[in-house]
Amino acid sequence: MSKITAKFYHAGCPVCLEAEAAVTGYLDRSKVDLEVVHLGTAKNRLAEAETAGVKSVPALVLGAQTLHLNFGAALSALK
Amino acid sequence: MSKITAKFYHAGCPVCLEAEAAVTGYLDRSKVDLEVVHLGTAKNRLAEAETAGVKSVPALVLGAQTLHLNFGAALSALK
Repeated sequence: MSKITAKFYHAGCPVCLEAEAAVTGYLDRSKVDLEVVHLGTAKNRLAEAETAGVKSVPALVLGAQTLHLNFGAALSALK
Repeated sequence: MSKITAKFYHAGCPVCLEAEAAVTGYLDRSKVDLEVVHLGTAKNRLAEAETAGVKSVPALVLGAQTLHLNFGAALSALK
């Protein structure tokens, strides 16, 4: 089985860090290739996150699906 | 390593079903014992979800952590 790609977008906020622990700890790595992206520092990745439908962080883009995990900060606040 | 317990609460809504597919498909079952709870039919589980901090569905209670995955319906709408 080929792996799907996942991107976890965050901004270092407390809510982000909690969600990151869950994602990095419990996502099945035999099925998922995970990249963690800090949008506060990697502002060049904001457009890509927006295109994937990310409205706020923390968010996990899992293949074609975008999941917002609780609410830390609006994407617009990171621009 | 002992497994942690996870409960995925939903109400059968489209947003819930999408999130359920992600959770059941990509959560690492070697680390997590997952139970799926439909709060629309199992109304006797509403109090337990509320105590865990669930405000809306779909939500995943992963050990001590509560993660709201996007927004389908407020818990109050299910009572």
